[in-house]
Amino acid sequence: MSRPASTKTGSVERSLEIFGDRWSILILREAFFGVRHYDEMQENLGIATNVLSSRLKRLVSNGILCRRKDREDGRRVEYRLTEKGLDLYPVTLALMQWGNRWLSDMPGRALALRHGPCGRRLKPVTHCSACGEKVLPQDVSFG
Amino acid sequence: MSRPASTKTGSVERSLEIFGDRWSILILREAFFGVRHYDEMQENLGIATNVLSSRLKRLVSNGILCRRKDREDGRRVEYRLTEKGLDLYPVTLALMQWGNRWLSDMPGRALALRHGPCGRRLKPVTHCSACGEKVLPQDVSFG
Repeated sequence: MSRPASTKTGSVERSLEIFGDRWSILILREAFFGVRHYDEMQENLGIATNVLSSRLKRLVSNGILCRRKDREDGRRVEYRLTEKGLDLYPVTLALMQWGNRWLSDMPGRALALRHGPCGRRLKPVTHCSACGEKVLPQDVSFG
Repeated sequence: MSRPASTKTGSVERSLEIFGDRWSILILREAFFGVRHYDEMQENLGIATNVLSSRLKRLVSNGILCRRKDREDGRRVEYRLTEKGLDLYPVTLALMQWGNRWLSDMPGRALALRHGPCGRRLKPVTHCSACGEKVLPQDVSFG
């Protein structure tokens, strides 16, 4: 990957300004698991309520989650991923894959991901949408 | 993606414990750009030296970067990605892609990524290595 000549910052930096702390990313992971309610997130993550509230507020104001009345129980509020939020799935998946490979103390007991349509253990691989080939760092440039 | 029944934490959380702050991820991006020296990282990122030193130390102690004498100038130290570090490329790429799509004020002027082998603009897509199909959130489970 060659560095762009014209800029010191870039998309990674701008992305991290929005969700660059671990709580925001863990809240997103909960959302991808289908968790929609404040109390469930709070219980699953063991997060302080003031931290959870501030992160949810920021994710909503940045358009990653939307906040609306629960259809089944109008007294409850639910949080759902927007299109912008859903588009973060490759980031979450890549983080899980890396953690499974490198951070498991007992590799055999790592949380394996399974790909439903083929039933096999999922190893996500990044491809180029244009030519279909696997993407390698040395093959990517800017411009 | 269905939630595993047995655990509250997982690979995402463990991964974030290691590099879950924006400086560590930006240092990694520099490494993927081929930047190997402390002073270049410092200049490119505008990062305080004590912060840069502590993040580099942590990335080295976690086995993501390795520290060694520069082959061309033995008085200098260089930092290189290990295999474990190189394996973080999909995370960095996914973050850049998302930022390019959603955070650019002027979409036409976003930093486009190019895929060298085919010469086309790179849109990274996540596929299953077993069946080759594109991976969708609803198709992934644990077990």
